[in-house]
Amino acid sequence: MEKRIGARTVRLEYPPAVLSFAAVGGHMEGQGPLRDEFDELSEDHFWGEKTWERGESAMQRHALSHALRKGGLREADIDFVFAGDLLNQCIGSSFSLRDTGIPFYGLYGACSTMGEALSLAAMLIDGGFARRAAALTSSHFCTAERQYRMPVPYGSQRTPTAQWTATAAGCCILADSGGGPYVTHLTAGRIVDKGIADANNMGAAMAPAAYDTLAALFRDTQTAPADYDLIVTGDLGRLGHDIVVDLFARDGVDMTKNYNDCGLLLFDVKGQDMHCGGSGCGCSASVLCGHLLRGMREKRWNRIVFAPTGALLSPTSSMQGESIPGICHAAVLSNDREG
Amino acid sequence: MEKRIGARTVRLEYPPAVLSFAAVGGHMEGQGPLRDEFDELSEDHFWGEKTWERGESAMQRHALSHALRKGGLREADIDFVFAGDLLNQCIGSSFSLRDTGIPFYGLYGACSTMGEALSLAAMLIDGGFARRAAALTSSHFCTAERQYRMPVPYGSQRTPTAQWTATAAGCCILADSGGGPYVTHLTAGRIVDKGIADANNMGAAMAPAAYDTLAALFRDTQTAPADYDLIVTGDLGRLGHDIVVDLFARDGVDMTKNYNDCGLLLFDVKGQDMHCGGSGCGCSASVLCGHLLRGMREKRWNRIVFAPTGALLSPTSSMQGESIPGICHAAVLSNDREG
Repeated sequence: MEKRIGARTVRLEYPPAVLSFAAVGGHMEGQGPLRDEFDELSEDHFWGEKTWERGESAMQRHALSHALRKGGLREADIDFVFAGDLLNQCIGSSFSLRDTGIPFYGLYGACSTMGEALSLAAMLIDGGFARRAAALTSSHFCTAERQYRMPVPYGSQRTPTAQWTATAAGCCILADSGGGPYVTHLTAGRIVDKGIADANNMGAAMAPAAYDTLAALFRDTQTAPADYDLIVTGDLGRLGHDIVVDLFARDGVDMTKNYNDCGLLLFDVKGQDMHCGGSGCGCSASVLCGHLLRGMREKRWNRIVFAPTGALLSPTSSMQGESIPGICHAAVLSNDREG
Repeated sequence: MEKRIGARTVRLEYPPAVLSFAAVGGHMEGQGPLRDEFDELSEDHFWGEKTWERGESAMQRHALSHALRKGGLREADIDFVFAGDLLNQCIGSSFSLRDTGIPFYGLYGACSTMGEALSLAAMLIDGGFARRAAALTSSHFCTAERQYRMPVPYGSQRTPTAQWTATAAGCCILADSGGGPYVTHLTAGRIVDKGIADANNMGAAMAPAAYDTLAALFRDTQTAPADYDLIVTGDLGRLGHDIVVDLFARDGVDMTKNYNDCGLLLFDVKGQDMHCGGSGCGCSASVLCGHLLRGMREKRWNRIVFAPTGALLSPTSSMQGESIPGICHAAVLSNDREG
């Protein structure tokens, strides 16, 4: 069977099964509409640790532990873990996995990391290199604010286009066999940069990458939005979501029926005063590993596109006047192993 | 064929071929013993750009261009590129690849990144997901000093155990067919942390990870050091190299005959006053994509182990009193496709 279809998409020959998944979140996530879909919610934003950064690593450990427990697995049952986060040098992941002994490939895909991790895990299983692989990522409001903008205690004013970094982590364990849902197709992202340079407007910066990858997926698989029960991007928020709808409308493609965004799902955006919505690696990861995969198991949806997006900027690149490169990695998840 | 052998090693069924490779470097690299093995050396540490960070991206672009040219390839011939670097949020890679349109998976493996990239590229090709994939990484002395320690113009004193971050980039393009050398086996790294907390002594922090991965490779493949013409770790420097020799000696394994380290190869360590030797993603990448692969094509060595190591710390984790987790990803390269 030819595994590559079209220019950018891979069709998995033996679609890997989602064996187990878990999501953990913080206070704001526990106030949001998805509160009942988390495996653990903590009011302690330090997660019992002395610093926020260590707290973020603790969140990842909890997400991994819940996923292992729910799947009846031990750490030694996992052949590879793909993990990453937003912190400089991805210390959220390297310190969370330090004591596990699981072979580890570190990723940096900003808020697209769960899509990247899921893609690589699925391909290594389908290729016969692993029986089970985990995708793991996190973000933390306080670590992200301190690193990218200002320490939280400064009380900086937020702009209307700003998004709220989720304090959350998600873990998804794929396997070569199991009950599903299954990962059937993957479309790899490429870097798209349309020149947006406002670090408080990530949605606009990332929307063209989401459009680029989703359009490639539809083209390569000869499908249309109506062929899916749900299409979700990661963390574009209100503005980015609307830009994607507009970009597809220009091509005569209707995205108004079944398209949503993890940043709009995780929070009650208006009620919780979230400006443009949620963001952060943990946003799409926890929405996938709670709301979306539970919904698929309950047959609320049978075939979805999960397409998290990442903004590949740093404070240094912004200070040097650079625009914001975006990327989006898409995966098709289906309750039917034939896709 | 069973692709997994032992606990941590993968044997590639159709070992991917090294189709093309290229290395670029800066002033100090041009003064070192490997000067004739680079495709390009620049005396301009800005590489024609306004900032060192943009210069680092330019280095990656040059390394990719040289590798494409030498392989008679265009960007569109590459199915995936795996890239990463030491900069916060890996901007060296995301800005270098911004205009290429090549599907991109961003990695963070610190100085082990070339090993991680090579591993994932090889598995995606062997699994039938790609015909050609590139592994690309870089480091830059001035960007690394500014980010991890102090801006270079401050003229900080270096400690005796410090290493010198290479200003260099390497690109290796693998393909499903070609003349070789071939990637025959991979041993994935796991995080090893023995409690070293001195950020000026990376070699000691990473040596236990190198020992862990090399020992797993020897065990899983039932080989010994003498079965290879050369074993090279990445960037352990003098002290880390000697610790690896000592750790193996305790097991009765002789590493004194054919074991070297990229950080000792790249520079004339004493003559160039490099303290413990070279370091940085670009060190092992440029040594592989210059000296080592050229040497294999010329049959100086027919079977080598390339095992770059990464220190997964950040300035934040060090300031919070954390120790330094290390990782090492190993690949066996052979002129004989049967391994």
